[in-house]
Amino acid sequence: MQRFSFDTDVAFEPRAETLLEQVTVAPLTRPVHEGSSIQAAIFRIAPGGRIARHPAGLPQILAVLEGAGEVSGASGVAEPIAAGEAVYWPEGEEHETTSATGLTALILEGDGLVPHQQ
Amino acid sequence: MQRFSFDTDVAFEPRAETLLEQVTVAPLTRPVHEGSSIQAAIFRIAPGGRIARHPAGLPQILAVLEGAGEVSGASGVAEPIAAGEAVYWPEGEEHETTSATGLTALILEGDGLVPHQQ
Repeated sequence: MQRFSFDTDVAFEPRAETLLEQVTVAPLTRPVHEGSSIQAAIFRIAPGGRIARHPAGLPQILAVLEGAGEVSGASGVAEPIAAGEAVYWPEGEEHETTSATGLTALILEGDGLVPHQQ
Repeated sequence: MQRFSFDTDVAFEPRAETLLEQVTVAPLTRPVHEGSSIQAAIFRIAPGGRIARHPAGLPQILAVLEGAGEVSGASGVAEPIAAGEAVYWPEGEEHETTSATGLTALILEGDGLVPHQQ
């Protein structure tokens, strides 16, 4: 059993990541490029922040844990999203996540990730 | 872009799963046995509930999102855990999660899952 924290005090703002505006990241896994089969992290978007529009590098699930915001996919049409709701973008889909009031989300990315279907 | 809920109203108590006592599950992915490369779900343990002792079927990360409880690994020694803290159990490790006051956790399981290291 190995323990680690993903709380706000260990979250960081990735310097090389220009897509993130007022967003901190607290990893749960190693990144895929460092050998994990999937990567998972907690993203905390401050009020007015965003994960700017870009294509999904891998199949991705974003699950809102706290707060609310807006998400869009290929259409570019922003839709409200709040805690308890998730979205899946297949590899290559252009997407964006913004929040006027602040939002905490789990992001999962990996080859072969298949979302739950209701 | 595909949307789905993982809120309390869609969570269910798996009937076939005798390890779960007062626990509901809200999947984020399809299960591994139905073709997803990893499986992720939100587990909500009611006060007094538990995920009973068993060996991890796959490498597993449990990340506590809300509340608090106790986790143990191969040693069987229960340690307190609370929101913002995570634990990794390698495949085969005996482990247990309990909560006297209630706990919501993300559980990730999959081959090749490598935890974040601090």
